[in-house]
Amino acid sequence: MKQIGIFPNFKKVNTAKITTETIKWLKNKGINVYLPRIAVEILGFPQYQNLLERSKEILDMVIVFGGDGTLLRVARELAPKEIPILGVNFGHLGFLTELEIPELFSGLEKIIEGHYRIENRMMLKTSLPKNNLKERQFYALNDIVITKGSFARLIRLETYVGTEYIETYPADGLIISSPTGSTAYSLSAGGPIVNPNLNLLLITPICPHSLHARPLVISEHEEVKVIIRADHQDIMLTLDGQQGLKLQPNEEVIVSKADFNTKLIRLKNRSFYEILREKLAEGGHKEF
Amino acid sequence: MKQIGIFPNFKKVNTAKITTETIKWLKNKGINVYLPRIAVEILGFPQYQNLLERSKEILDMVIVFGGDGTLLRVARELAPKEIPILGVNFGHLGFLTELEIPELFSGLEKIIEGHYRIENRMMLKTSLPKNNLKERQFYALNDIVITKGSFARLIRLETYVGTEYIETYPADGLIISSPTGSTAYSLSAGGPIVNPNLNLLLITPICPHSLHARPLVISEHEEVKVIIRADHQDIMLTLDGQQGLKLQPNEEVIVSKADFNTKLIRLKNRSFYEILREKLAEGGHKEF
Amino acid sequence: MKQIGIFPNFKKVNTAKITTETIKWLKNKGINVYLPRIAVEILGFPQYQNLLERSKEILDMVIVFGGDGTLLRVARELAPKEIPILGVNFGHLGFLTELEIPELFSGLEKIIEGHYRIENRMMLKTSLPKNNLKERQFYALNDIVITKGSFARLIRLETYVGTEYIETYPADGLIISSPTGSTAYSLSAGGPIVNPNLNLLLITPICPHSLHARPLVISEHEEVKVIIRADHQDIMLTLDGQQGLKLQPNEEVIVSKADFNTKLIRLKNRSFYEILREKLAEGGHKEF
Amino acid sequence: MKQIGIFPNFKKVNTAKITTETIKWLKNKGINVYLPRIAVEILGFPQYQNLLERSKEILDMVIVFGGDGTLLRVARELAPKEIPILGVNFGHLGFLTELEIPELFSGLEKIIEGHYRIENRMMLKTSLPKNNLKERQFYALNDIVITKGSFARLIRLETYVGTEYIETYPADGLIISSPTGSTAYSLSAGGPIVNPNLNLLLITPICPHSLHARPLVISEHEEVKVIIRADHQDIMLTLDGQQGLKLQPNEEVIVSKADFNTKLIRLKNRSFYEILREKLAEGGHKEF
Repeated sequence: MKQIGIFPNFKKVNTAKITTETIKWLKNKGINVYLPRIAVEILGFPQYQNLLERSKEILDMVIVFGGDGTLLRVARELAPKEIPILGVNFGHLGFLTELEIPELFSGLEKIIEGHYRIENRMMLKTSLPKNNLKERQFYALNDIVITKGSFARLIRLETYVGTEYIETYPADGLIISSPTGSTAYSLSAGGPIVNPNLNLLLITPICPHSLHARPLVISEHEEVKVIIRADHQDIMLTLDGQQGLKLQPNEEVIVSKADFNTKLIRLKNRSFYEILREKLAEGGHKEF
Repeated sequence: MKQIGIFPNFKKVNTAKITTETIKWLKNKGINVYLPRIAVEILGFPQYQNLLERSKEILDMVIVFGGDGTLLRVARELAPKEIPILGVNFGHLGFLTELEIPELFSGLEKIIEGHYRIENRMMLKTSLPKNNLKERQFYALNDIVITKGSFARLIRLETYVGTEYIETYPADGLIISSPTGSTAYSLSAGGPIVNPNLNLLLITPICPHSLHARPLVISEHEEVKVIIRADHQDIMLTLDGQQGLKLQPNEEVIVSKADFNTKLIRLKNRSFYEILREKLAEGGHKEF
Repeated sequence: MKQIGIFPNFKKVNTAKITTETIKWLKNKGINVYLPRIAVEILGFPQYQNLLERSKEILDMVIVFGGDGTLLRVARELAPKEIPILGVNFGHLGFLTELEIPELFSGLEKIIEGHYRIENRMMLKTSLPKNNLKERQFYALNDIVITKGSFARLIRLETYVGTEYIETYPADGLIISSPTGSTAYSLSAGGPIVNPNLNLLLITPICPHSLHARPLVISEHEEVKVIIRADHQDIMLTLDGQQGLKLQPNEEVIVSKADFNTKLIRLKNRSFYEILREKLAEGGHKEF
Repeated sequence: MKQIGIFPNFKKVNTAKITTETIKWLKNKGINVYLPRIAVEILGFPQYQNLLERSKEILDMVIVFGGDGTLLRVARELAPKEIPILGVNFGHLGFLTELEIPELFSGLEKIIEGHYRIENRMMLKTSLPKNNLKERQFYALNDIVITKGSFARLIRLETYVGTEYIETYPADGLIISSPTGSTAYSLSAGGPIVNPNLNLLLITPICPHSLHARPLVISEHEEVKVIIRADHQDIMLTLDGQQGLKLQPNEEVIVSKADFNTKLIRLKNRSFYEILREKLAEGGHKEF
């Protein structure tokens, strides 16, 4: 652990202070620190040489100060590099973040000593072959979602798995989710909860206007193709609910497992099921 | 039946021809016919004196040429007048339309002879007391829907029935539906099917991000108040999925039963349950 | 309030003591008290003259010591008499019970002074016309449920509303629920929550083996007929989950609104929605 | 292909005739045929030497005459032997059966020539460690289901994945399903559809009396433990809905992936998704 990046979310209180303290702490240990340009500017540092944007190849780890949302953003940005990510949360418990602020330096100590494990999380990739986008490939850790605008008429999503026609969902949209994303948007649309260490894809229609549509679990080796059928242009593709792209009628969206994982640094023995209970279920047992 | 209006949907094939024939047929019977200004222009009629827009007070019936969507539009427009509506469908069976084109003139004959019944359908009204809209009241036959835009962060819908706090739904949106609307958007969001001759309100959250939210059926005498909690302005209210209004954070939406009904002209003995079977269920019995 | 019955559920701790104290308190006020024969025996009273079983006609009120389950039982037993029921709960909050033990005597004081209101709850009645049962009519406050045994093959429930054929549900069973019962078994099978002061029937299939089956809300004036199609005899009808009757293949079950209500004595201003929040929802707002 | 077993379901019409013809056809090819004792008796054959029950070790294939239900039964019976199974259906299309009667002999011809492929389907195993059953292990291809009797009070299912506590479901029961079983009982209880070539376990509560319970997808390497909490003894475990065992309160049920697969003989190129469309969805596109 010689080269460590830091991604601070400055919308959270105290981020600047914590980030500065962490930089100092790491430098004292003889570790080189890398920051995104925007953080350098906000923190008012002198012209920094270690810009994170230029150094992705050499980083041993990235620390994220923020919640699950910030971590999703960083995971997409670092996607093909497979740099281990440590999520440090300011607020309440997250599915992805590992430490809370009071545990920060004791946790970093352990990591530097090598006492941690890496948890691999499957990512998704998507491409829009009929679109003239500069970028050919997009990534997501949670989900790739196709939706119509709130006032637009419903769209029809002609869906294939491999070459096999599945169904044309008349719906508000369609969620293609990783196991990690099963506890995010997909869950609100009726999808199952999936152990995030599995490798599979989850297809969940949003408000389908046909009674027989159901969530579908497919193999990590299968590719999903969705052809957008609509008579209007108010259609959007979103990555992890954070990054959006406009889609056109008759456009094709291809989604499959990415060729690399998000690597989460884990120090604790909290299992997914434990986090799930805390996040979703009630403290006591409310029965009816 | 001396004063009859006609609302043609010109997006459907043959509308102009059928409308012209119907006008001729009605005039032969000594009936005065009223058309919307747009129809007069499209049909190329000479300056017509019987503009429907000026004559709502005196109409005995309005004939709608189009599907359920067109009928919803007319129902909202004629709302407080309670003019009976006859829906004539060009395509497949509807929940609201009553006749298909080949049955048109034999059906009109029966109606003129008084051989029909009126089916009352509860309507919804909504007001936005904190908004400076010119119109104070809006109406819907199917549903009043609050939704966020497709790329916006989720909204929180602080919901009251009367003065009673129900829940703050973190969700994509909320549907307040009449019984008639229970087979429309509400059904796709998990709501129950309701006999459309009942008088009640149905509250259905859209993709709620809390596991315990469920559709709620309340009395026709209860008023729903929803306060929009959001940190963005991409929020919309839609009437029957057709007419849209922008909403602001912290705005209040009040929904209750309207003071009048949509009056559908019925000639046949098809019950709601029969239409339901034809529209929703499979011809045969597909079991798994 | 001169004639008051008491129904104690002796499975609850302290029931005997509380019942004896209540009898003494009521007698001091000059009120005649009536007990079921079983209670007389358990309490070891001398041969009592005021047996509740013989005195239903003259009772002004019945006090139930127990939870919602005990109250359901009493409601069915007293069904056609419309005697007001006061539910006194030993444990946690109920949908139907009104007082907790510490509030008992102050509550009774208010009731005797006439400071209470009556809440009417719609009941269901059912008959099995093809069965040679001595009793011709059965009642339920929550629900009338048809189910197959746990090891039996699925049954088909040919369902009519009035004379109108609805569907033949291939399923584990079917719930016909009152608004009061909407927060009981029906909710676990995917039914909506209904304001219990409404008058309507709710039909909810249990684990239907066809994808298009949905809960159905019908009018209080409509009658449901279910014909049991099965090739085995492991089929049961249950009233409020408490009283069971064996059904035969091809047997008909008729369900409709009963001709009388359960009358609940209410002293507090707690609304249904308030109880709902406490019973079903989480204390805080757990979102995902 | 020298040793072939036949399992006929004699409840289907024509089974005896088809079975006899198939035996003759196979013998003509010099193949030894093995039948279950019951089939030998029904067909009135002379004392047969090739009893299937004694010969499981040497069979190259088993032909099943019947539907998916019959095939499930055979799959459990042959479980640890991994003998390839060919399902021949008398009626409509199945998820598991491969041929219809008219295709029987042309299909067998291809198989004998080696023109077929084997599709592996994950099986489940279960044990009841606290029970004194002679058999220590039971198998299922679709699902292992714990349910209460139809008139019994609800049970609480204290559920663990590995050593991790998940939840105590207050429910009618719990389904632990293989991917193959995802289109059976689990689907009727709200579970997702799973590509049957995946290896994973699906946990679906039946009519849970808590609002936050959701279907859960876990790894093929994880073991499920369910401790039955109930105050009555009307509790049952069923294998594929066909074989039942009584359970006691506080009994433990352990379920995991079996150490072997069901091997289905496939001749056609029908994919799972194609069968799914035919079995579950409507021919046309019924939208609402």
